Amino acid sequence: MPHPLAAPLLSGNRRALARAITLSESTRPDHEAQAQALLAEVLPHAGKSVRVGLTGVPGVGKSTFIEALGTWLADAGHRVAVLAVDPSSARTGGSIMGDKTRMPRLTVHEGAFIRPSPSGGTLGGVARRTREAITLCEAAGYDVLLVETVGVGQSETQVAAMTDLFLLLALPNAGDELQGIKRGIMELADLCVVNKADTDPKAATRAQTELTAALKLLTPKGAPWRPRALQASALTGAGIPQVWEAVGSYRQAVDVAAKRRAQTTLWFDDLLREAAWRAFQAGLDTEKLRALRAEVLAGNLTPVQGVQALLSPPPA
Amino acid sequence: MPHPLAAPLLSGNRRALARAITLSESTRPDHEAQAQALLAEVLPHAGKSVRVGLTGVPGVGKSTFIEALGTWLADAGHRVAVLAVDPSSARTGGSIMGDKTRMPRLTVHEGAFIRPSPSGGTLGGVARRTREAITLCEAAGYDVLLVETVGVGQSETQVAAMTDLFLLLALPNAGDELQGIKRGIMELADLCVVNKADTDPKAATRAQTELTAALKLLTPKGAPWRPRALQASALTGAGIPQVWEAVGSYRQAVDVAAKRRAQTTLWFDDLLREAAWRAFQAGLDTEKLRALRAEVLAGNLTPVQGVQALLSPPPA
Repeated sequence: MPHPLAAPLLSGNRRALARAITLSESTRPDHEAQAQALLAEVLPHAGKSVRVGLTGVPGVGKSTFIEALGTWLADAGHRVAVLAVDPSSARTGGSIMGDKTRMPRLTVHEGAFIRPSPSGGTLGGVARRTREAITLCEAAGYDVLLVETVGVGQSETQVAAMTDLFLLLALPNAGDELQGIKRGIMELADLCVVNKADTDPKAATRAQTELTAALKLLTPKGAPWRPRALQASALTGAGIPQVWEAVGSYRQAVDVAAKRRAQTTLWFDDLLREAAWRAFQAGLDTEKLRALRAEVLAGNLTPVQGVQALLSPPPA
Repeated sequence: MPHPLAAPLLSGNRRALARAITLSESTRPDHEAQAQALLAEVLPHAGKSVRVGLTGVPGVGKSTFIEALGTWLADAGHRVAVLAVDPSSARTGGSIMGDKTRMPRLTVHEGAFIRPSPSGGTLGGVARRTREAITLCEAAGYDVLLVETVGVGQSETQVAAMTDLFLLLALPNAGDELQGIKRGIMELADLCVVNKADTDPKAATRAQTELTAALKLLTPKGAPWRPRALQASALTGAGIPQVWEAVGSYRQAVDVAAKRRAQTTLWFDDLLREAAWRAFQAGLDTEKLRALRAEVLAGNLTPVQGVQALLSPPPA
């Protein structure tokens, strides 16, 4: 029996989409089963969007950049969905007040859909909900997905693993500021954009040059895509079309379908490992685990012995 | 009952050390139990060395650099052990012929001990054996451990996770050559050394400048240690003392004991997850796994449904 939300969702009804996402975020077992059935039902209609991940240090102007890019795309006829992965999100309900004030123009645009981060507790939980929200948005006809990460913990890796292209926003006053970019993030970037270029054009060009050099160093020979650094101003709109042009070039250079298959396989395997680990932990003696880890750290047992002692049944 | 190898090992007997490492590399269950008992016995005597991980692209002169640094240290009275992590190692026995020709001076130095990579099949297996070899070498009185990685797969990450400091060797003709450095490796480096600086001093200085800039970009603000780029020549010996000086500065800046505790905890948890995953896989229906993964990739099932179908018992 088809889920009652399926038909309105597939026809692009925004309220149905919002409710479907809320359903997929619920932890009630009956809701989870319903959400999975709904997801399976709409799955054949998903997958037809351009999925862009975005990150950047606080103050880089992420929201205004997404507002500028999203509005420009929606004005051009695209249907744009904005999602977020924020494992620190302590929101209790579905309020999107924060996002409404952050992106005033996009929020009221009829071609756009904005959804704040699910508050799933663990990063794995948040990431899973966001992946499912991507599927639901695509099924509802959104053809551009902008997935933002606030850059807490490993959230960038997760967002890069669910998007086609990962975009790193940077500030013009490179030197010190760039050092705020976390270890490993530069490596994920397919595109760097120096935002707020209007505030200091000279510094922006210097930052662009430095980022280009860093990206060059970090890209292996023979890679199908060489990450680029661009300049833009969310405020004036300068550079925004060029960013979208670069996204297009990327999608021509890279086999996106193959990348997505690899992402799905990894996701499946992660879920499987997680389920296996949960089942294992459920049967684990946590007191004994704590004691054995302490013994290992004290150098009284080798790690291998510690694990063996934990897994072997106590002598009868 | 103490293991018969323990006493000669602790007195620094080289043959006992070699035999102990061979024992720890054996996959025979009785050998494994013996090796773990021996390791536990000598564990209180281990941990007193400086552990340096080394990597670099082929042709960078890794062996000659290790030979130069190792000989210089051994001449100064240090006891130097050289280990390797090479998951591609297809050696069948314990031959160290390859390493003997690669490091002719160090091989015959009485203050040095060289051991090729264990051929443990998986990277995890090789890494575990190497960690155990570190313990055995330290118990035998070696106070400098140089752990080399050939840079296959994730071996650098593994070596960085078992050493105090990770050293990346680079070539003077930076530009193109540096691009051979794999994604993510630069991020692991605590120290970069431009080797073969004698062959092209100008290019070496340029490479040093470029590496310094890249390291600066990749190091977060407030980090206790700012990775440095140096120059050296394994051939002339120039720069070797400065490399060791930098290792000393690193050890003063960083809380090595805390780093090692964190490494041991991670190792223990990895072993535990691995054991849990093995136990889980042993009970897994691989036919069903293959079929369900295909269904997920075809878009007929969500990944969550695929995992659930795999874990739920078939209807009776």
